[in-house]
Amino acid sequence: MTDTTQAAPASTRDRLLDTAAELFYRDGIGVGVEVLCRAAGVSKRSMYQLFGSKDEVVAASLERRLPASEAFLLPPADDDRPPRARILHVFERLEVMTAEADFRGCPFVAAAVEVKSPEHPASLVARRAKNALTAFFQGEAERGGARDAALLARQLTVVFDGCGARAVVQAQPLDGLAVVTAAALLDGAGMRS
Amino acid sequence: MTDTTQAAPASTRDRLLDTAAELFYRDGIGVGVEVLCRAAGVSKRSMYQLFGSKDEVVAASLERRLPASEAFLLPPADDDRPPRARILHVFERLEVMTAEADFRGCPFVAAAVEVKSPEHPASLVARRAKNALTAFFQGEAERGGARDAALLARQLTVVFDGCGARAVVQAQPLDGLAVVTAAALLDGAGMRS
Repeated sequence: MTDTTQAAPASTRDRLLDTAAELFYRDGIGVGVEVLCRAAGVSKRSMYQLFGSKDEVVAASLERRLPASEAFLLPPADDDRPPRARILHVFERLEVMTAEADFRGCPFVAAAVEVKSPEHPASLVARRAKNALTAFFQGEAERGGARDAALLARQLTVVFDGCGARAVVQAQPLDGLAVVTAAALLDGAGMRS
Repeated sequence: MTDTTQAAPASTRDRLLDTAAELFYRDGIGVGVEVLCRAAGVSKRSMYQLFGSKDEVVAASLERRLPASEAFLLPPADDDRPPRARILHVFERLEVMTAEADFRGCPFVAAAVEVKSPEHPASLVARRAKNALTAFFQGEAERGGARDAALLARQLTVVFDGCGARAVVQAQPLDGLAVVTAAALLDGAGMRS
């Protein structure tokens, strides 16, 4: 009985956040609370019991995407390829992402662009997501003996986000550009393996 | 007399578009028609006489930014430095842009991200703006003897937009990253001057 009682609010929360993530990504964070709650099958009252504001819903819905996003982009834990291949893996995955019909850019960058405020809770989540990606690149760059691992990691993050922007603006998949550009920077940093 | 009569509608249009460009960039394209018209001191009736829809206003306000944006970013016509320096000029200007307190990303990318539709008239303007930047890079890359000028031009555009995204997400100026990254790609393409 206790389990069931505890499970119910969690499931309302998850349903709300999954719907929010989908709607905000597809239509923008301007989607209203009415529309969101109706689509999620959650009352506004329940929403405001769970979250202090819509801004918090936007942030929590992004936060909830993060593990799946990282699982999709990063190499699996048991991948023992060299650092260069592990870094390029991320860009290969990005190419796959941008080829999806419903690709609308990196959800974290899109949210940060849309909220127009660096202190918005969603901006904080976006920053954390990007810093995690940069930290992954930096760890691999250090293992791979890159000339300046911290710089290379920031450059690779820039290429990642620039490629996402390009796919949105051109409304086309990247066609290899992400991998080739990341490889050029790896070459430049002397990281051939 | 004729001049005055003709000047009046032009000035209403310009006032509307300048206010639209400012508000949409600062607060997002979700800014409503009421708010926009009030801020511009233009009646809704006048707005709809000039433009068929708000989407058209968004697109026209972006379009109107383009010449000033290019004048800011591109080297002047009488700049006779070599192609490499002329390309790096764009990234130096980007660094300046991202250091401005009200920087909210490249306005063209931001609009394309926000409208969520590749056929939106604003997406078409954004695509045109980016293609013009890529064409500038490609012309310089060809003059500079880059190994693959078309590829390098796309890579530089990616770095440009990735740097814009980074400055938004981190809420910090780039601190040299744009220039250093562009230079690394120029080096990689064998374009040392």
